[in-house]
Amino acid sequence: MSLLCIGTLAYDTIETPTDRRERSLGGSATYFCVASASFAKPRLVGVVGTDFADEDRQLLIDKQVDVEGLEVAEGETFTWGGRYEADWNTRHTLFTNLNVFEHFDPKVPDSYKDSRFVFLANAHPAIQLKALLQVEKPEFVVADTMNLWIDIALDDLKALLQNIDGLILNDEEARMLTGEANLILAAKAVLTMGPKYVILKKGEHGAFLMSENVHFSLPAFPVTQVVDPTGAGDSFAGGFMGEIARAGNIEPGTLRRAMVAGTATASFCVQGFSLEDIGSRTDAQIEARIQQLLEIVTV
Amino acid sequence: MSLLCIGTLAYDTIETPTDRRERSLGGSATYFCVASASFAKPRLVGVVGTDFADEDRQLLIDKQVDVEGLEVAEGETFTWGGRYEADWNTRHTLFTNLNVFEHFDPKVPDSYKDSRFVFLANAHPAIQLKALLQVEKPEFVVADTMNLWIDIALDDLKALLQNIDGLILNDEEARMLTGEANLILAAKAVLTMGPKYVILKKGEHGAFLMSENVHFSLPAFPVTQVVDPTGAGDSFAGGFMGEIARAGNIEPGTLRRAMVAGTATASFCVQGFSLEDIGSRTDAQIEARIQQLLEIVTV
Repeated sequence: MSLLCIGTLAYDTIETPTDRRERSLGGSATYFCVASASFAKPRLVGVVGTDFADEDRQLLIDKQVDVEGLEVAEGETFTWGGRYEADWNTRHTLFTNLNVFEHFDPKVPDSYKDSRFVFLANAHPAIQLKALLQVEKPEFVVADTMNLWIDIALDDLKALLQNIDGLILNDEEARMLTGEANLILAAKAVLTMGPKYVILKKGEHGAFLMSENVHFSLPAFPVTQVVDPTGAGDSFAGGFMGEIARAGNIEPGTLRRAMVAGTATASFCVQGFSLEDIGSRTDAQIEARIQQLLEIVTV
Repeated sequence: MSLLCIGTLAYDTIETPTDRRERSLGGSATYFCVASASFAKPRLVGVVGTDFADEDRQLLIDKQVDVEGLEVAEGETFTWGGRYEADWNTRHTLFTNLNVFEHFDPKVPDSYKDSRFVFLANAHPAIQLKALLQVEKPEFVVADTMNLWIDIALDDLKALLQNIDGLILNDEEARMLTGEANLILAAKAVLTMGPKYVILKKGEHGAFLMSENVHFSLPAFPVTQVVDPTGAGDSFAGGFMGEIARAGNIEPGTLRRAMVAGTATASFCVQGFSLEDIGSRTDAQIEARIQQLLEIVTV
């Protein structure tokens, strides 16, 4: 079933405890689309500059991503730089150049307006809402956010929360948004702010989904060598929403399998820089990892 | 089937961010026996002083713990004091008075020598081994340890590891024992040191079990209000070994269910000071929590 993603495409400079890469293809929508492509053909709304490489566009097309909504604007593509501490959990932003994303006015192509499943990848909540309102009758809308927007655009974020079905966020963001230290209480607090579903990610400690009728918790896939955690959250979201779009419903069983798909997909992402690992995986390899994860978590 | 536990009985002084208790009944064997009592009638080997209260002995007897191996020695019972930081994960030891435990020479009663399942609760590894060697033909022996013994009695601990089937330890201890930061690699390293099974506990992030033929990972039960984490690890071990003793085998399916039993049991422990919560639970309440946890983790 139709899956739409609105978010960023970027060139990242990444420093890890052991390595460094410049101008790696990145961005929330990029990771989401590549990760969801094994489950559903995603439709992409985003903007890049005239410096966006043909081979990067081709990578998306080869992955069956619909790029009709990918705008090319005069100027440079968004760039971001980050450095990870040895614990892999602490990330410092080195620089953020919004470039063409600064004045991005999202336009959802007519051919995308019937999208049933929508993912609003990390971006300013006002941009996320503006894009969402162009979709005619979405059935299930999930948004991501980050501490920056909780800090500087809380009113816009609260308005967005009234218009979405699910919010996906990490432990730090959940505590910041709700003021609750306990993550179960934080998730319950999010459910009073608009969304009917909350997906709370805990990095290497897994993730849980909570709604009025479902509470499902899953450990992370046991990755023994993390190379670059950038994009893991968006890859999780890609597998999660991809599986939901593939199933075409949000039954409790689908949501549980979607959590497994998201967890398995994200585990490939962290094994390589940029899209090096996740971008090279076949559908069969992703399915095999899902089965491996099911084996690890099944009582 | 017969389950034997060797470990400490203590009076604890506990300071949490919100409360304080003096001379609460504690100790590794105490928590283990109370937690395992819903699954199997545990046999206890330990020592207390002449100050050990009749009501505390009665609590163990009421829980169907076999106290034939509980020695009363001239002097005071082991006392321990600890303080928890606001994050609940950081614990400072305020004092440790071994008292009668200092010269404890464990004696396994003849009636216990046919025990099939043995848990060596946290104690000096030389004492753990001395007790173990008195058991005739144990089928499955699991030991707990702590950073103190890794630090000051590593050779004794390594000798113990050659004589047990499973080691249960937390994330910090696993990293300290093996030098591996990644917990999967740390668990694999433990498996090269003697034990065929390693159970690695991650506190609020759950636990996993690893052996050559089983890898099972489980999130923690979602507790919304932690009152006192003391004894959670021993309670986990109690539920884990209790379920194995109840089943009478170590088939992969039993080990998985044992992890669920341990997780559910530990979740009661942290909800109250000392044995206040876990000591008051009925078998039906424990079974209900196991079912609740299964609901949360089943895909």
